[in-house]
Amino acid sequence: MQAMKSREIHLKNRPQGMPEAGDFELVETEVREPGEGEVTVRNLCMSVDPYMRGRMMDRKSYVPPFALGEVMTGGAIGRVVRSRSEDLAEGDHVSSMYGWREAFTCPAGELRRLGELSAPPSAYLGVLGMPGMTAYVGLLEVAALKDGETVFVSGAAGAVGSVVGQIAKIKGCRVVGSAGSAEKIRWLTEDLGFEAAFDYHDGSIPEQLRAAAPDGLDVYFDNVGGDHLQAAIGHMRQFGRIALCGAISVYNATEPQPGPNNLTLAIGLGLTLRGFIVSHFQHLGDRFRADMEQWVASGRVRYEETVMEGVERAPEAFMGLFTGANTGKMIVQLGAD
Amino acid sequence: MQAMKSREIHLKNRPQGMPEAGDFELVETEVREPGEGEVTVRNLCMSVDPYMRGRMMDRKSYVPPFALGEVMTGGAIGRVVRSRSEDLAEGDHVSSMYGWREAFTCPAGELRRLGELSAPPSAYLGVLGMPGMTAYVGLLEVAALKDGETVFVSGAAGAVGSVVGQIAKIKGCRVVGSAGSAEKIRWLTEDLGFEAAFDYHDGSIPEQLRAAAPDGLDVYFDNVGGDHLQAAIGHMRQFGRIALCGAISVYNATEPQPGPNNLTLAIGLGLTLRGFIVSHFQHLGDRFRADMEQWVASGRVRYEETVMEGVERAPEAFMGLFTGANTGKMIVQLGAD
Repeated sequence: MQAMKSREIHLKNRPQGMPEAGDFELVETEVREPGEGEVTVRNLCMSVDPYMRGRMMDRKSYVPPFALGEVMTGGAIGRVVRSRSEDLAEGDHVSSMYGWREAFTCPAGELRRLGELSAPPSAYLGVLGMPGMTAYVGLLEVAALKDGETVFVSGAAGAVGSVVGQIAKIKGCRVVGSAGSAEKIRWLTEDLGFEAAFDYHDGSIPEQLRAAAPDGLDVYFDNVGGDHLQAAIGHMRQFGRIALCGAISVYNATEPQPGPNNLTLAIGLGLTLRGFIVSHFQHLGDRFRADMEQWVASGRVRYEETVMEGVERAPEAFMGLFTGANTGKMIVQLGAD
Repeated sequence: MQAMKSREIHLKNRPQGMPEAGDFELVETEVREPGEGEVTVRNLCMSVDPYMRGRMMDRKSYVPPFALGEVMTGGAIGRVVRSRSEDLAEGDHVSSMYGWREAFTCPAGELRRLGELSAPPSAYLGVLGMPGMTAYVGLLEVAALKDGETVFVSGAAGAVGSVVGQIAKIKGCRVVGSAGSAEKIRWLTEDLGFEAAFDYHDGSIPEQLRAAAPDGLDVYFDNVGGDHLQAAIGHMRQFGRIALCGAISVYNATEPQPGPNNLTLAIGLGLTLRGFIVSHFQHLGDRFRADMEQWVASGRVRYEETVMEGVERAPEAFMGLFTGANTGKMIVQLGAD
């Protein structure tokens, strides 16, 4: 029997500033046979996410850095093609962190069996996966959203931001978003029902924010950091909450970037800024999946994907996150279901 | 009957940067007779507090700005000398916001009757008053201190900071403080029982903080802002909480100051930064007074005062807050009890 081949992406250099194609390398390997308790999986699709930029740096962080010359990892959905485990059968859909490759062998215990799919596999990398759950816990737990409040979300056309806005709508809130193109703004306001949205290229962020939400903000969901965070702090209402989820505007900075120059406003207004990552809230996974599967099935939460085909395009897909190439979730398609 | 005189301090100019003596003016006025429901009060002592710097600027804030050419206001303790109210008798001790003057007449409803004093009147401007309650609610409610945690407080020898550290000690915590002189450091470590304290003039704040609390911080109580806040963020443990109480290091800045350049650390660590002012927690006043009177009476919370005599020295006392002239609460003594 011929050995199974897999193509995978290695990290070749640690990027300085914006990542470049030359920081990555496409490598072909053989997938080893599964041992006892192991399975072999063929990936259907994989995720690229902004947080991966941080893992490319050699520094202490909440996840260890990617190793140079090793395969990149990240969320992926695949199907079991060989099994020597009683827990997984051939044909099972599984979620793993074995992304950036076409196939792999690992212990069955490192995989999550998805069961009956209620949506296409790629949705489990987006709205029904990590980004969807990030939006869910960030808005409802971290920012403690209350019905009828005014919510601002940056990166609003992204995988997380677009779900944040739609959950806020379900909770009866007024939602304002920012994004980076006229097309994204149309999607947010015409398709997703945001009350207002603006293109941050179109002028002063504080002024556009004031125009979009004249009475101020109760909640800001920050995917962007930098100027957006400062503008939001300057426009919060008393006892407002800011969920610090990401800071894509500064991930490629080569020097530490100054923080918001108006943070002392938090004192008099009683503001809360709270950082989080989704793994802090794993205990809410069942509640998230139950709510979100229902919202997606009923059409109350809609999602878009930007899809690139083939593992060789994973670096391009990743780099596109920083230029706003994606509307909704950026997916790399690796095979047919 | 001769009219009662009072000397008072007016705000003459809005300070640019550090306040100066010429920004204030001493004025003598007559105290009017009380009308029906009013009382006349002679102040025993008055408070100067860092928050007053913000009120000297003409900008929207959580308290309206002081008016130019008008008397300054602030916390004061006095005794009723004439009463036309059934609620207050001559001789009653009262707390008011009619500071920066020797005597005044006002409706009885604007005053809080102190009842039997359990400490000298000036303590009701400090440990048993607004600064003590600020420490109490900031540490126990805003930062949600848990027994046995590691706490860092800046401005630790000030009216608020010194109480923060002592409450943390009562809760079985390890306490590190920063202050601005060797004498203050000795007071914190030798008299108040802080595990460690450092003079921020003595070298890098991040390095001194790491040496004082090698395992990191669970709670930071920020009275200072600026470099202290950035250093603390860089040294927090997972799920740490930062109570944003004040930012005395930037109150006199004439330009907006950049915020902490490491705020994105809050994401992975799940940090919470929460601003507050004591008036957000008025509902806890009775609990505070019961706890603190007991702690002060039993000697578990000790306090120092730096006292200046005479209303004419109020500007000097106020300006001294920004040069670290005070250990503990800065008090202006206006008369004998």
